[in-house]
Amino acid sequence: MGKLTIRPLFDAPTSTFTYLLYLETGQALLIDSVKEQFERDLKLVSELGLSLKYLIETHVHADHITGAGLLSEKTGAKIVYGAKSGVQSADLLINDGESIDLEGTSIIGLSTPGHTAGCTSWLIEGQVFTGDSLMIRGCGRTDFQQGSSEVLYQSVHQQLFSLSDQTRIYPGHNYQGHPWSTVGEEKMYNPRLGGQKSLEEFKRIMDNLKLAPPQRLAQSVPANLKCGKD
Amino acid sequence: MGKLTIRPLFDAPTSTFTYLLYLETGQALLIDSVKEQFERDLKLVSELGLSLKYLIETHVHADHITGAGLLSEKTGAKIVYGAKSGVQSADLLINDGESIDLEGTSIIGLSTPGHTAGCTSWLIEGQVFTGDSLMIRGCGRTDFQQGSSEVLYQSVHQQLFSLSDQTRIYPGHNYQGHPWSTVGEEKMYNPRLGGQKSLEEFKRIMDNLKLAPPQRLAQSVPANLKCGKD
Repeated sequence: MGKLTIRPLFDAPTSTFTYLLYLETGQALLIDSVKEQFERDLKLVSELGLSLKYLIETHVHADHITGAGLLSEKTGAKIVYGAKSGVQSADLLINDGESIDLEGTSIIGLSTPGHTAGCTSWLIEGQVFTGDSLMIRGCGRTDFQQGSSEVLYQSVHQQLFSLSDQTRIYPGHNYQGHPWSTVGEEKMYNPRLGGQKSLEEFKRIMDNLKLAPPQRLAQSVPANLKCGKD
Repeated sequence: MGKLTIRPLFDAPTSTFTYLLYLETGQALLIDSVKEQFERDLKLVSELGLSLKYLIETHVHADHITGAGLLSEKTGAKIVYGAKSGVQSADLLINDGESIDLEGTSIIGLSTPGHTAGCTSWLIEGQVFTGDSLMIRGCGRTDFQQGSSEVLYQSVHQQLFSLSDQTRIYPGHNYQGHPWSTVGEEKMYNPRLGGQKSLEEFKRIMDNLKLAPPQRLAQSVPANLKCGKD
């Protein structure tokens, strides 16, 4: 088990974080890649001399198309989704609590539905990659793709807030300029879910957001259900 | 000397990285703050229970006004610039090779002119905060504020590329979605300055950029020469 490096990458047009994780041996995985950044990501993997083993997704995104399909074709890396994602064409579908292995490093799937019904957060050596389930001082919306404020509240409290306070949270998006935070911080300062916010308060906050639909919803969801493959 | 945490913060409108660095004891410093993010930064410092000692700037920015003046008034932290920055109202002006101390952690100023005549990079425990001198797979422009391609080439090669290959580079901006890199990587893959690029090649690249002036140049430079104080 070698030292793990976490390398965030950023897609400015959609404010999406992609994470490249790699061991000293060169074994690597990519979380939530963006199709438009396919060449950038592949170039970096090549420059660093990495061998890409997994393309992991936190959920079926509504705001961008995943780069997983293209990257899988080029590198042979396996596409990994949570079992409830509905992505039947993934190479691996992981149930809550199951893990995959990168040379002795466990990547544990934590089912965290609520933003979508199939969201999975990924726990890797004291870090959790939460996608749109829990974001820094925020959370994903719950008003489409079988989203549910009640379900998200339970996911965050039972799965994510039960991790140690030092666990570092790497979210799927960066809307307020906070690239990461910790479980302890979000438990205290997340304005929607932290402090002693009740389920009723959270539901009221989410009901009152009144957000416009994501611009790329109609293209992204069907494309992502096919892993972004054309 | 406690464990140092590096917390990047991001200002999307100007693609600017601010870095909050803190020790386990709560002693902290902020590098390249943005005036519009003053409240966010002050709130985070408060939530984390930090005591802000230094407000460090890499240079007199042309694209945004620093938050250092406001933060200094609120917290009493000292404003730190490189000695050649021309910012006479700073609390501390650091020459090349001089350092300031945060409870045993040295913050070493490396004079890296070229983007501006007064740019300073800051070396802190195996990390270097380069501002606009060296960016990830890029560099700052050299066509105003006494910029000089020739001087920047020397700064990068003599000061930054002489650091150990493992030194992590945290830049002032994120234009291509790469939040950080290493000296070893930039020496190999920086398309302007890496590989075996000669000074002549670098000058030709920079001469051909033909960039429009920064939108906020006329406001930012005079404001920053006064530390962003109104």
